[in-house]
Amino acid sequence: MKHLPDFIRNLIDEFDKLPGIGPKTATRLVFDLLHRQNDIKSFADALNEAHQQIHFCPECFNLTDDGLCNICSNPSRDKTTICVVAHNQDVEAIEKTSEFEGVYHLLNGLLSPLEGVTPDKLKIKELVKRIEKNNVQEVILALDQSMEGEATGLYLSKLLKENGVNISQLARGIPMGANIEYTDEVTQSSALKNSKKI
Amino acid sequence: MKHLPDFIRNLIDEFDKLPGIGPKTATRLVFDLLHRQNDIKSFADALNEAHQQIHFCPECFNLTDDGLCNICSNPSRDKTTICVVAHNQDVEAIEKTSEFEGVYHLLNGLLSPLEGVTPDKLKIKELVKRIEKNNVQEVILALDQSMEGEATGLYLSKLLKENGVNISQLARGIPMGANIEYTDEVTQSSALKNSKKI
Repeated sequence: MKHLPDFIRNLIDEFDKLPGIGPKTATRLVFDLLHRQNDIKSFADALNEAHQQIHFCPECFNLTDDGLCNICSNPSRDKTTICVVAHNQDVEAIEKTSEFEGVYHLLNGLLSPLEGVTPDKLKIKELVKRIEKNNVQEVILALDQSMEGEATGLYLSKLLKENGVNISQLARGIPMGANIEYTDEVTQSSALKNSKKI
Repeated sequence: MKHLPDFIRNLIDEFDKLPGIGPKTATRLVFDLLHRQNDIKSFADALNEAHQQIHFCPECFNLTDDGLCNICSNPSRDKTTICVVAHNQDVEAIEKTSEFEGVYHLLNGLLSPLEGVTPDKLKIKELVKRIEKNNVQEVILALDQSMEGEATGLYLSKLLKENGVNISQLARGIPMGANIEYTDEVTQSSALKNSKKI
């Protein structure tokens, strides 16, 4: 790439930093973008706007543009039910179901002591404070079904039981579209235990 | 996505325009980027710089920052041998071999009448002018081995033969690492015809 102008190499480096995008894909994206001059400008403007406006909701720590996020500032949402999630995308996923009427709390990650993510790195202290302040009755843990998700769930449930709130977690079972044959044993045994009358 | 702030939705839209990136990947990339505030700024700066500096070399139409590109302005490159390619990435690919000492000419695409890419949409007129002006002796067609690449090659060879230049195209054969068993017939028959004494 030695004969490429610096500005192209810089741009390739920026794309290369994104997760799942390597130098080859980054180069392809940059060359495609460079042939659409208006889009370069609007892309740069969108990033600048994001840099100026980005802001975390002081209640739930979700990304927002100003003050409380749209969910926390919505008077029709039930402030005494908190759904605890690890990432912003999880809020999107649950909101899509339109089934949840409470508010969220973003931990900004999952416990993973080996990678240095200890409880003080997550927004756990803030969750406890919020539960005490708002007289929260119900906490739903919507965490990934992974080692880290499990560990975070266990840690939180032990911690929050002291506050006398009801703690539940998302049901584990066979997902829509899955073949029973190819489902792992842990999922199958959970699904069996939680099977429902129809 | 209705409760996401506008600036996040705009940014997702910009990523979504890139080739091979759909709304789900765009959302994942944006949320990852938004958690690295310094990177948002440097990404925006890189794009702004690209928008200000982007410029096509008046000789070969490759992307450059100012005046002639690094290859055209290099006095040690042979200006009488032109390698004709379709895209900027092709220049990168050939430069990596360090085997070619001539200069390039970018067509900015391949002939595809069904998609409206007729000869006047490509930099073909400019190629002919350049050949006449610089007394070019040798033209190497390095075009994709596709219907469009083949058609463009045929069109150019007919056109350029009138100028009395030598025209060649990249050899077709079995690529490194390929199994003969899985190579298609067209490639195999070309490889057989062009087999060399060892």
